[in-house]
Amino acid sequence: MSSPRGKSLAAFFEPDAVAVFGSLREVMGTAYGVIKNMRQFGFSGVIYPINPNPSNYDEVFGCKVYPRVNEVAGPIDLAVVITPPPTVPQIVEQCVRKGVKAVIILSEGFAESGKDGAKLQRQLADVARRTGIRIMGPNTFGVVNSANGLVTVPPYTDISRIERGGVAFCSQTGSVGPHQTPLEDWAYPISKMCDIGNKCDVDEVDILDYLADDPETKVVAMHLEDVKDGPRFMDASRRLVNHKPLLILKAGRSEAGARASVSHTGSLMGSDLIYDAAFRQVGAIRVNTWHELWEVPKTLVYQPLPGGNRFAVITFTGGQGVIAADAAAEAGLTIANLSSATIHKLSSVFPRLAANPVDVGPAMSDSRSQSSSNPFSAVEQATSIVLDDANVDCATITFCCGQHLVPMYPMVVDMFDRLTHNVSKTVNVWLYGTSLPAMGELARQLQARGLPAYLDLDIAIKALGYAAYYSKFKSEVV
Amino acid sequence: MSSPRGKSLAAFFEPDAVAVFGSLREVMGTAYGVIKNMRQFGFSGVIYPINPNPSNYDEVFGCKVYPRVNEVAGPIDLAVVITPPPTVPQIVEQCVRKGVKAVIILSEGFAESGKDGAKLQRQLADVARRTGIRIMGPNTFGVVNSANGLVTVPPYTDISRIERGGVAFCSQTGSVGPHQTPLEDWAYPISKMCDIGNKCDVDEVDILDYLADDPETKVVAMHLEDVKDGPRFMDASRRLVNHKPLLILKAGRSEAGARASVSHTGSLMGSDLIYDAAFRQVGAIRVNTWHELWEVPKTLVYQPLPGGNRFAVITFTGGQGVIAADAAAEAGLTIANLSSATIHKLSSVFPRLAANPVDVGPAMSDSRSQSSSNPFSAVEQATSIVLDDANVDCATITFCCGQHLVPMYPMVVDMFDRLTHNVSKTVNVWLYGTSLPAMGELARQLQARGLPAYLDLDIAIKALGYAAYYSKFKSEVV
Repeated sequence: MSSPRGKSLAAFFEPDAVAVFGSLREVMGTAYGVIKNMRQFGFSGVIYPINPNPSNYDEVFGCKVYPRVNEVAGPIDLAVVITPPPTVPQIVEQCVRKGVKAVIILSEGFAESGKDGAKLQRQLADVARRTGIRIMGPNTFGVVNSANGLVTVPPYTDISRIERGGVAFCSQTGSVGPHQTPLEDWAYPISKMCDIGNKCDVDEVDILDYLADDPETKVVAMHLEDVKDGPRFMDASRRLVNHKPLLILKAGRSEAGARASVSHTGSLMGSDLIYDAAFRQVGAIRVNTWHELWEVPKTLVYQPLPGGNRFAVITFTGGQGVIAADAAAEAGLTIANLSSATIHKLSSVFPRLAANPVDVGPAMSDSRSQSSSNPFSAVEQATSIVLDDANVDCATITFCCGQHLVPMYPMVVDMFDRLTHNVSKTVNVWLYGTSLPAMGELARQLQARGLPAYLDLDIAIKALGYAAYYSKFKSEVV
Repeated sequence: MSSPRGKSLAAFFEPDAVAVFGSLREVMGTAYGVIKNMRQFGFSGVIYPINPNPSNYDEVFGCKVYPRVNEVAGPIDLAVVITPPPTVPQIVEQCVRKGVKAVIILSEGFAESGKDGAKLQRQLADVARRTGIRIMGPNTFGVVNSANGLVTVPPYTDISRIERGGVAFCSQTGSVGPHQTPLEDWAYPISKMCDIGNKCDVDEVDILDYLADDPETKVVAMHLEDVKDGPRFMDASRRLVNHKPLLILKAGRSEAGARASVSHTGSLMGSDLIYDAAFRQVGAIRVNTWHELWEVPKTLVYQPLPGGNRFAVITFTGGQGVIAADAAAEAGLTIANLSSATIHKLSSVFPRLAANPVDVGPAMSDSRSQSSSNPFSAVEQATSIVLDDANVDCATITFCCGQHLVPMYPMVVDMFDRLTHNVSKTVNVWLYGTSLPAMGELARQLQARGLPAYLDLDIAIKALGYAAYYSKFKSEVV
């Protein structure tokens, strides 16, 4: 059942025409910057810069500048406002009269800044309640939609390409944004991003409703400091979790964190135990760190859900197998008991391969001493046998990279393709080695083929643990 | 009090002359590779390749090849052996007769491989016990000494430069080695590394004794799967912890991990609770993950120990302050109560700065709107005031990087220099942003000036927590 409130958010992400209010000076953090980014990312709609002194700027990036929004002839779906706080309520009223459906207020200086700002913010909330216009923010970077090139972030820093993919982010902090994360270097598959900021109107529940129905979004990752309305939040989460995994980084978990949150958002928060219980009840995945919020979705978006929590790991050294087994226990996974058929097959590849964790090191040394042309044949054979075992639900393959291997990457990527293509198990890769650029390059190449690659072993394994948790929740509850 | 067993290890790390036994064919993982690495890293001593067919190889990298070790005229301190397992006991006997003090056995195929290998390994242990020659391994990558260019790793993968510094690593797995970690990309400050492998003679206690007295080593990081002799281990650890911090990654923590360890090392392990209590009793820092083992030492080696656990954090957004406060609570730190003088000084820089976590975002926006020439002046002022507060023991400074900032790095690095120079607080930096190369580059530049830089916020803060833990232990017990 779709939510009318969620539906009303379409104008934020899929507008045909956008008005941008603010300074057109070529400096950081202005309307000029917003328009520049929209152009750079190839926004497919019409852009109307609105500036009371249009004589200074006839046009910006080929867009005609208007002194007032009501002088624009065509319809406008979305307004983006980055003007001094006292001017904002009036601008929103003008937008209402023009029939604009949604407004993003990038400006800072509202409830987060003190009494005067809080008063202005209440005025905005009143307009929204009274007129039905939807407002995101204030104090937000706004939205990203990788499908239509909509990026409302003013370029405080450089944003490069944003890859179209299945992960949506929603946050209450600007730092979960495209202007503060290496999305291009990570080859990160983004569907939508948004920052609900001070939440004078649009809140986490609206976004959950919208993303639940968004066909581009396969996984939702959410940073929250507070939840405004518990029951509504639980309903919306439950509905979303029916269709796709929901990760939540709820900051202010500790007493110290909660105090810090009150002081910067002004909003009061409930006990963390209550949040914890609520998230568990609706089947949301509660992640604990900033890095988990970014890293875990990769496995969920690229890989099928595991049938259970039986884990296998393929390593180049026995020592790493032990470390991985510890990480698996921590992540709620069990070490899969390989079937006797698998043990037999592994033994015929190399006698000491027949255990999980699967240490391919000795077999690789052996093939090296035989000057084999493919140093990874033991890796491929062993991994293929293990992934074929019905006792195995999920696996991490560890792989050591170095600059000297870069020329062999086409062969390596093909191997991983063969190993994971048409395999219904949940698989990811941990890359380590002597060269960070070589590790990063292989990670990008593997992810381009749909295999999530990690530079942190624990997070790779945790991602499988969270996937198993969600899979179990779905099978039992949904 | 120095240990005679520890002293006897000098030949492993500081030999004047090294014999290398094994194949001189130009393939991976041979004696040829060992010699190549020693030459490449500028080993300052004499190298004697030993190969029974010297007619094939008159010399290797300018080193004359000898058919047998007893034909070498001068004294030999260390032998490195990479020959088939059945040949090894005899080679060690030859070394004994030649007066060699220490032998590293790189070869695999001993206790880790089955009954026959275990029998060969017992022979090696017997020779050591009977003759006093010291043996490291088998099944090891051997040693690294950044001071004299000694690297006994055969180049399975490329190893680049190893930076001389204060962190020593000792492990029971080859994967904590220079051939499997991006030491150069991390600009990692190494004193010594060693892999004790199957521990037929030299064990973790010998290494602790040696490193306790090693003036180049300021911090010791150890990977262990088992401890052979609990009381000796505790004595040696206690003595080392008097002088320098000891980090331990004890793998096989979980039941699954312990089982995996037994299967690949053949050694039985005690209950993890006993290890935990023992480590706590001697003041060792027990880290939980592979990444912590690598990342935590950077703060300990570059920064002074904190006087307490009162933590401050400087962030560009309020949201990150809350996340950092949660991480601090998790790491055993408390959020420092800033003094009223500090609050007053911060307020005079910018009204909303006066709290910890210190969110410099609004002050930066403000200076940006005034087109200030230095966008980081608020960061510098606020951080300087906070680090000056007697209520603050340690701090993490967060900093957002991007390619567009790279030209400003000299200014940024100078700022961090001014902030941390002559400051007695324990400080590190978390770098995030839009470009991984830009983040990596700033990390390298800051670390070159002695400021530890992290790309993972939680580990940065954990490192401070561990430093506070060690500092407290030292002040109470030592």
